[in-house]
Amino acid sequence: MTTGARRRMGVEERREQLIAVALDLFSHRSPEDVSIDEIAEAAGISRPLVYHYFPGKQQLYEAALRRAADELAARFVEPHEGPLGARLLRVMERFFDFVDEHGPGFSALMRGGPAIGSSRAGAMIDSVRQAAYEQILAHLGIPDPSPRLALVVRSWISLAETTALLWLDGRRIPRAELERQLVHDFAALAAVSAAYDERMAELVREMLTSEPPDGMFADLVTKLLALPEPV
Amino acid sequence: MTTGARRRMGVEERREQLIAVALDLFSHRSPEDVSIDEIAEAAGISRPLVYHYFPGKQQLYEAALRRAADELAARFVEPHEGPLGARLLRVMERFFDFVDEHGPGFSALMRGGPAIGSSRAGAMIDSVRQAAYEQILAHLGIPDPSPRLALVVRSWISLAETTALLWLDGRRIPRAELERQLVHDFAALAAVSAAYDERMAELVREMLTSEPPDGMFADLVTKLLALPEPV
Repeated sequence: MTTGARRRMGVEERREQLIAVALDLFSHRSPEDVSIDEIAEAAGISRPLVYHYFPGKQQLYEAALRRAADELAARFVEPHEGPLGARLLRVMERFFDFVDEHGPGFSALMRGGPAIGSSRAGAMIDSVRQAAYEQILAHLGIPDPSPRLALVVRSWISLAETTALLWLDGRRIPRAELERQLVHDFAALAAVSAAYDERMAELVREMLTSEPPDGMFADLVTKLLALPEPV
Repeated sequence: MTTGARRRMGVEERREQLIAVALDLFSHRSPEDVSIDEIAEAAGISRPLVYHYFPGKQQLYEAALRRAADELAARFVEPHEGPLGARLLRVMERFFDFVDEHGPGFSALMRGGPAIGSSRAGAMIDSVRQAAYEQILAHLGIPDPSPRLALVVRSWISLAETTALLWLDGRRIPRAELERQLVHDFAALAAVSAAYDERMAELVREMLTSEPPDGMFADLVTKLLALPEPV
């Protein structure tokens, strides 16, 4: 290591830097539109040197994706303390932070992403979904869910993805409202499912009755009860 | 045209046959696992002759996809008569018919599909989503939706896709229940959104009060009202 202004980095350090630079560029523009030349320039090294650390754009893209996937999965981790609604809300806040920070990269990825490495990208996305799924089941205290609960949780995860993508496209609704709305959507999807399944009904009853009077779900129930009964 | 057992088909007729044969094979196995040889054999023609009608597997795959997309979009068309809940339920029944008939093909496509022609496949999927979106807005009588209504409709469409995909994976929940559940999910997502937006609240009130006492949404409201209030 030199003490000059542009000291030499170790291999791992340089790889880390290139991943960070790539993620930063992907947060402003779609990965398909970012060239190796730009990544090299932003990192202050030559194009051939980039290829010394990553054999091609696909490998760098995949490494950046893996980093982003790990970071997102880490944001799902939430202490098992306090009302469930408040926990879900905190996770949604961190999820939208992530979406906000990685806008174009997140969009491109979820909309099919660059053709390069698509099956591996798909597997990484699925692993993040699986992490979210397992976290939610752990918070519900049900490691072995019925098919109906599994459907509620997995379909809610896809709803959160879609909501975030639609939000990114114009940001016409304040994200704080969407974070709350998604927590309410979870309760609403669970409540609908409860109509078909006694175990789901029990879970929903438990979720609602264990909330504080000023909690996330109390709010929802009050609002739903204010809806008119049909004629 | 001959009168023999294997009469000669015209170009359009042969292309139609190959598309039908491909769609039939894709309804049993993922498109990636179906070879041109198998398609040729099932159509009763030689492999080189298939290439006479379609330059490659990708073109045949895209033509089959276009056919399936048109067919699915056509199933969204529903007369503007009777209660909204019942209309949505009939559309859901036809959607699940389609998913049932095209199982592995539908799954492969929605999970990213074969790498070949993925951007064009993505555009076709988006066009089907757009058709569904416009149909629903027409039934609601709101051609120019607020961002919040647009979000409810588009996110419900993604929920229907996810629910169908999860159903295909093991078919552990009767599809008739999922069709009803999705109609209820629509009302539930709209009701949650109504908490944030007066125009959504009006729409939900109108939806619920215009339903017959034994209608789809009446059923839902009764069930939601039976949930306990939080302590």
